[in-house]
Amino acid sequence: MSGGGAGPAVVPADLRVAVLGGTGPQGRGLARRFAAAGVHVILGSRTAQRAQLVAADLRELTGGPVGGADNVTAAAECDVVLVVVPWDGHADLLRELAPALAGKVVVDCVNPLGFDKQGAFALDVPEGSATQQAAAILTESTVVGAFHNVSAVLLDATEPLETDVLVLGDDREATELVQALADTIDGVRGVYGGRLRNARQVEALTANLISINRRYKAHSGIRVSDV
Amino acid sequence: MSGGGAGPAVVPADLRVAVLGGTGPQGRGLARRFAAAGVHVILGSRTAQRAQLVAADLRELTGGPVGGADNVTAAAECDVVLVVVPWDGHADLLRELAPALAGKVVVDCVNPLGFDKQGAFALDVPEGSATQQAAAILTESTVVGAFHNVSAVLLDATEPLETDVLVLGDDREATELVQALADTIDGVRGVYGGRLRNARQVEALTANLISINRRYKAHSGIRVSDV
Repeated sequence: MSGGGAGPAVVPADLRVAVLGGTGPQGRGLARRFAAAGVHVILGSRTAQRAQLVAADLRELTGGPVGGADNVTAAAECDVVLVVVPWDGHADLLRELAPALAGKVVVDCVNPLGFDKQGAFALDVPEGSATQQAAAILTESTVVGAFHNVSAVLLDATEPLETDVLVLGDDREATELVQALADTIDGVRGVYGGRLRNARQVEALTANLISINRRYKAHSGIRVSDV
Repeated sequence: MSGGGAGPAVVPADLRVAVLGGTGPQGRGLARRFAAAGVHVILGSRTAQRAQLVAADLRELTGGPVGGADNVTAAAECDVVLVVVPWDGHADLLRELAPALAGKVVVDCVNPLGFDKQGAFALDVPEGSATQQAAAILTESTVVGAFHNVSAVLLDATEPLETDVLVLGDDREATELVQALADTIDGVRGVYGGRLRNARQVEALTANLISINRRYKAHSGIRVSDV
């Protein structure tokens, strides 16, 4: 059941999606899946050249519409902008890009995690979560949280994923658009997961999935039952 | 795949499980499911009389071995003690029961949540989570977190559940025992979910499930994929 019972939203044919941090494993995997679904993607990276190299690779792998640009250009050219950058530098990057992101739907996919010998753990974020930090910085954008718990390894492949994507946000039109975007990935279902104030635990849950992966030698994900 | 790859653990035939707060919806539902599986349960409540009334009801519904007692007696008579009490008073109750709980496996099932017009949200806990609070108070017990995300409505019924139970803890023997206990519930699978320090987000995720239930008119739960 997608679209929150209001009928499934669909992704507009002319939608352009930027993936900032698209040369990292998670961003690359998401861009690959969107391109495979025929969604127009512009990979963003620190340098346009690096983004264009990965975009060329993904075009070859998927035959889909993928371009590459520096982060500012990618953000400016797209309607929906996924932020898939490392937690270190998250706030700085968003402050820098705030003008380019004004008026757009920004999807924060960042998990603030620390790592030590015992594995992964959630970091405290003054604003509550990475998504809420983005919302605090990007006051002219509509911020949504999503794609936190999807395995990068499984994304950068062709097999259908067997996972749901929890989509968090306070703006229904934006969360439904992002649910529809998640639905374009083979085997994935976008499920509304609550308001921004409940984003922290969805980001942090990735630490548990990393523990599960280690124990069970898996690439675990989350399915919501009874929905 | 249960038992963390070390072979599925089984619940010892003579295991006695206390469910403190067993007259509330979540505790009653868990006790009902364990009794239906033939696990010996003692319901605990503030007063023995109230616990015995619910126990009699569950004996009639399940034909299983359910008794009732005050919380201290229930805790003292059992090997595994589930704490399914309201968050208010959680710490006070555990301090009071600490001597009776020494040497036992204590399974904290409590979700520290607040509610307002916008729904549920996670409360801040000084120790990090209810489970870590229990571990801080019960220094002579082995504390595990589990059963946070299971719908009380679905528990207090007979249909198989379609959900996993994330089991959190730092003691492998205890987490495997609690996984095995979860496995006794029809349709449920106990999955190791990480160390105690990663309990907060599993407790808090219940706020998201409440949001999902409201949006989709469901009794949602969690499945872990690829495990």
